[in-house]
Amino acid sequence: MATIRDVAARAGVAVCTVSRVLNGSAAVSPKTKARITDAMAELDYVPNELARGMFRQKSGIVSMLVPSIRHMFFGNLAHFVERELYRHGYKLMLCSTDGKKEREAEYMRTFRSNLVDGVILGVASLDLDVYENFKKPLITTDIRINDSIPVVVSDNDTGGALAADAFIRRGCKCVIQLISASERFVLSLQRHLRFAAKLRDAGIAVQDVEIKWDEFDYHGYQELAQSILDAHPEIDGVMAADMPACAFLKAAIRMGRRVPEEFCVVAYDGTYLAHVNTLDMTAVSQPLDEMAAKMVEVLLELIDGSEVKGTYVQLPVSFRQGETA
Amino acid sequence: MATIRDVAARAGVAVCTVSRVLNGSAAVSPKTKARITDAMAELDYVPNELARGMFRQKSGIVSMLVPSIRHMFFGNLAHFVERELYRHGYKLMLCSTDGKKEREAEYMRTFRSNLVDGVILGVASLDLDVYENFKKPLITTDIRINDSIPVVVSDNDTGGALAADAFIRRGCKCVIQLISASERFVLSLQRHLRFAAKLRDAGIAVQDVEIKWDEFDYHGYQELAQSILDAHPEIDGVMAADMPACAFLKAAIRMGRRVPEEFCVVAYDGTYLAHVNTLDMTAVSQPLDEMAAKMVEVLLELIDGSEVKGTYVQLPVSFRQGETA
Repeated sequence: MATIRDVAARAGVAVCTVSRVLNGSAAVSPKTKARITDAMAELDYVPNELARGMFRQKSGIVSMLVPSIRHMFFGNLAHFVERELYRHGYKLMLCSTDGKKEREAEYMRTFRSNLVDGVILGVASLDLDVYENFKKPLITTDIRINDSIPVVVSDNDTGGALAADAFIRRGCKCVIQLISASERFVLSLQRHLRFAAKLRDAGIAVQDVEIKWDEFDYHGYQELAQSILDAHPEIDGVMAADMPACAFLKAAIRMGRRVPEEFCVVAYDGTYLAHVNTLDMTAVSQPLDEMAAKMVEVLLELIDGSEVKGTYVQLPVSFRQGETA
Repeated sequence: MATIRDVAARAGVAVCTVSRVLNGSAAVSPKTKARITDAMAELDYVPNELARGMFRQKSGIVSMLVPSIRHMFFGNLAHFVERELYRHGYKLMLCSTDGKKEREAEYMRTFRSNLVDGVILGVASLDLDVYENFKKPLITTDIRINDSIPVVVSDNDTGGALAADAFIRRGCKCVIQLISASERFVLSLQRHLRFAAKLRDAGIAVQDVEIKWDEFDYHGYQELAQSILDAHPEIDGVMAADMPACAFLKAAIRMGRRVPEEFCVVAYDGTYLAHVNTLDMTAVSQPLDEMAAKMVEVLLELIDGSEVKGTYVQLPVSFRQGETA
């Protein structure tokens, strides 16, 4: 494989001139630069990214750490983040903790090395000092770590209220909400607090069902839905993330409950999964594409060493009237 | 941040001894090794992965390049690959081409540098020499590049036959199959060839509908399903990947077609998406967890420099009787 020396020889310049071109320095004349890039093309020269990274302290890679690749919210968000990073010349390294602390710890150690230029966290279950002493561009979605690590999030408070309104309009009496349990205060908790408060104010009973990240796949949710609805026929509504919402909708319909007359479902997130059932699900949608664009914008500002104004970016959610509430 | 020199000083050894421990050399006594790892822990020392990579020529990272993170087959396969790599001390860098050649070319150039130890391809649309001259451990799923690059795939021939049998048993007369168009010969084409041949042998009309990777999201599939079924009321069956199968099932039910009496659907892949509709979809399932385990096993053999016996690994598919065919 051709080396930087081969390129320099072919272009008739010094090795350090080739190096300057590789690192995007302006201190090379356009003519010389053209000669060097021609030589690279002729020799099929591939720069050694590790060596370039040592020099530039940049790898061109951003990591995103999520509790699950298969979770629709994170899978779709990662899809948009990847697209947005690519537009800016960066690559995404998507990693999953599978909901496990020790995996998160191991990934955070890896990220602290020079392999990645910045990190997007969709999970943060470790001691605060891991994040505070991370010493690299770091942003989160949905998790407030401290006042200096930027957060991009959608408006959970309004989202919870919009979801509650749907059950109130339908005259539900006994509603459950599924909550992804986490040891750290996640901002999406506000959605659940507001949801419960608004329903209680309206005289509607509301119960939380806590679920761990790594506890269920779709079939697990199906069994959970079946057993809850069997044991508690008084339940006439459920709010849950798209995937468990699908499971509850299916269980209710198969048990002969008329939707939305006798049983209501509101899906939270509003990915395409909320549209897959024969009945379109009523949903609160998070603006995943806008969240991804904002996350990449803020992270690249940090990577470029710019000052980031405002560490809390909140984007609006939207309510989509479907056929299930 | 602590350096390798700090660790050496604290442990009372030479820098090169610390380096040997970092690189897993056996030429360090257990006692010395313990002293060094204690010093690392006390100083919260993080090895510079780029510098280690330069030395070892290993980064501990495997890339997987797929046409779409959101496609259920690849999203779920990546989930299992990530889990399996993690068990072996490797990390996954999941990247998507969004179905675009120029993005694939750019990623392949990045992978040729030292950043990754090996690559799993779920897409291969470039000139053959890109793969043949890649000079790094490389395996594919579903794509046959040449006789030396290993492939892990499920049994598409049997899968196509099993799907066809379902329509034959139901007495369908006019069936369509959705095919993800690709310029390269993908092994899943065999599924479609066998499917069509078996139906034709049984006197059933069969028509291909070609779809580009980046052409549709779920809503696009819904519109496509609606327009096809509107224009061709004679169609009484469809085989498609899980996501478009969901769209066709929904469109047919909403048009008042009785499933499976008047309209049959067979989902290919059999991820949880095939279970989300109120009707359980009849499906041909690929063994994603076994495929992932085999892919990681073969790739790590290549990375470790072992000889890989057999470059074509085919795993069995299974038929799951649901309610839609």
